[in-house]
Amino acid sequence: MSIANGTSGSHEKDAPGGERALVRAIGALLARYAPIRVSDANGPDFGDDMAPLPSAGPDSVLAWTTDMLMDGVDFRTSEAGWEAVGRKAMLVNLSDCAAMGGRPIAGLLALSLPRRSPRADVLKLVQGAAEAGAAHGCPVVGGDTNSWDGALVVAVTVAARREPHGRWLARSGAQDGDMLFVSGPLGGSILGRHLKPRPRIELGLQLAQLTGVHAAIDISDGLLIDLDRVCEASGCGAELDEHALQAVIHADARRLAERDGRSALEHALSDGEDFELLVAAAPRETSRLAATGLLPIGRIASQKGLWMRCEDGTLRELTARGWEHSC
Amino acid sequence: MSIANGTSGSHEKDAPGGERALVRAIGALLARYAPIRVSDANGPDFGDDMAPLPSAGPDSVLAWTTDMLMDGVDFRTSEAGWEAVGRKAMLVNLSDCAAMGGRPIAGLLALSLPRRSPRADVLKLVQGAAEAGAAHGCPVVGGDTNSWDGALVVAVTVAARREPHGRWLARSGAQDGDMLFVSGPLGGSILGRHLKPRPRIELGLQLAQLTGVHAAIDISDGLLIDLDRVCEASGCGAELDEHALQAVIHADARRLAERDGRSALEHALSDGEDFELLVAAAPRETSRLAATGLLPIGRIASQKGLWMRCEDGTLRELTARGWEHSC
Repeated sequence: MSIANGTSGSHEKDAPGGERALVRAIGALLARYAPIRVSDANGPDFGDDMAPLPSAGPDSVLAWTTDMLMDGVDFRTSEAGWEAVGRKAMLVNLSDCAAMGGRPIAGLLALSLPRRSPRADVLKLVQGAAEAGAAHGCPVVGGDTNSWDGALVVAVTVAARREPHGRWLARSGAQDGDMLFVSGPLGGSILGRHLKPRPRIELGLQLAQLTGVHAAIDISDGLLIDLDRVCEASGCGAELDEHALQAVIHADARRLAERDGRSALEHALSDGEDFELLVAAAPRETSRLAATGLLPIGRIASQKGLWMRCEDGTLRELTARGWEHSC
Repeated sequence: MSIANGTSGSHEKDAPGGERALVRAIGALLARYAPIRVSDANGPDFGDDMAPLPSAGPDSVLAWTTDMLMDGVDFRTSEAGWEAVGRKAMLVNLSDCAAMGGRPIAGLLALSLPRRSPRADVLKLVQGAAEAGAAHGCPVVGGDTNSWDGALVVAVTVAARREPHGRWLARSGAQDGDMLFVSGPLGGSILGRHLKPRPRIELGLQLAQLTGVHAAIDISDGLLIDLDRVCEASGCGAELDEHALQAVIHADARRLAERDGRSALEHALSDGEDFELLVAAAPRETSRLAATGLLPIGRIASQKGLWMRCEDGTLRELTARGWEHSC
């Protein structure tokens, strides 16, 4: 059972008003957003066993990413609504493109739908993904639909190209002495922002043009965890600046702190799904990065581990698992 | 939580001995199969937010496909075993490549694992997918892992390139007067073959070189359903030859018929997951196609609908839903 490609088990066949009609409806919906038309001269037709992957030009270098999201883990369909689910599934993949400095070119959407999901709801999900993709130049060009007795599962795959003169921004390039920056305030995304990440694609493309930008990652699992990933991949440590961090505490982190008694800073350090970029760059890029709106939060250190330079001048060790306010 | 790229919800974080260790173990396992090494000069590092999509050459035209498989629908993990699940998830995607005449170049693997899945089992699944991919030149280069309270879900995405002088084999090109062929015997795959599809990649590549081959599809949902898809996409009908079909009834179809009382021919026509190719080609290609082992089963007709030329010479209409033996 396919949107534009793929196979299904023999379980679902082509019941009247069933799979094939749904696939047609999805195809018609996607065609409203996708610049790739049926019978693209260079690719397979829409609706075939594979979907066209748009040409990225003669010197293109491509990368791709996939994220699978599940009801009850990454969203609650009943609370968020189907459109928000589709949107989030696309946007978290686009955030990965941003972290790599790639320009997204197309996406695939695979679904496992609870049996008897209303068609209108399924189409809302597809629309959410298609609109979010189209807004960033990333049409949904194919996929796979299935139904089962389980909860809703959505997997999006996105391909991206490297811009001319750009590089892929890896996690592994951070160097001792690099400054650390984030692209926006952090914490408390669970209050709603986690459903509407803003993929920092244009920022990622800018960063990929700057030779002094050494590493980047999108903050999906929390600043400390994702910083730890950069440090592990780069073979270094990091020192965060408590004073500078005050400027990157999101208002949602403060609201959440009032409710649960944890500090707003702890939320900023540990909450996931902000989807801002964390960047390590040579000090000489500081003014250029400040001009893009990046906010300094500390620096890379040769000593392994995560450290906090507290406002009182002391240095405390952090763990990637979380931050107990000890300054 | 990622294999080589992607994000996860904030639910799973990086528990000691948890996600990151699993990701490292998966990375080490994949590296045994994948020709794409860490620090590929043209792509991102393994383990980053995106995975490298291998270059397909300066004149490359790419296509891609994704299939999502679920426990209880496409397999039963407890019966098939984890390795077979990973293998099937890869092979059904490779079968889509075969149907398009594409040569697979790389794959992504996304997982939603039941909580507390034993790591050894997860690695067996990854190994099954990686081995099946490697056997067809399709390394697993990245993906996404998650855990949840639901059943096992596996999504594989595969990219393929078009060979020089080849075309994409679409469903939509069948013409009145074309002969219909299948690449092997059909029916009864549920007895076990459905877990070990043989993707007809080399055959698909050969077919894509023959200008008289007008349409192809892999038989995933059953001969009649998939033939109906070709006919719908091509705006034509088809006439099957009951006598010729005797040669494409799989021994498993006969075994299953003895058990359930349906005819072996009905199983051959209606059972899913054979993953053989169904091909429509001009009569002038008949000898070349016979040399590849393709078996004739009928012809394309201008009259819409699916028809059976019975052994007694009468013509009966079929439905894509199934075949009641009425000859």
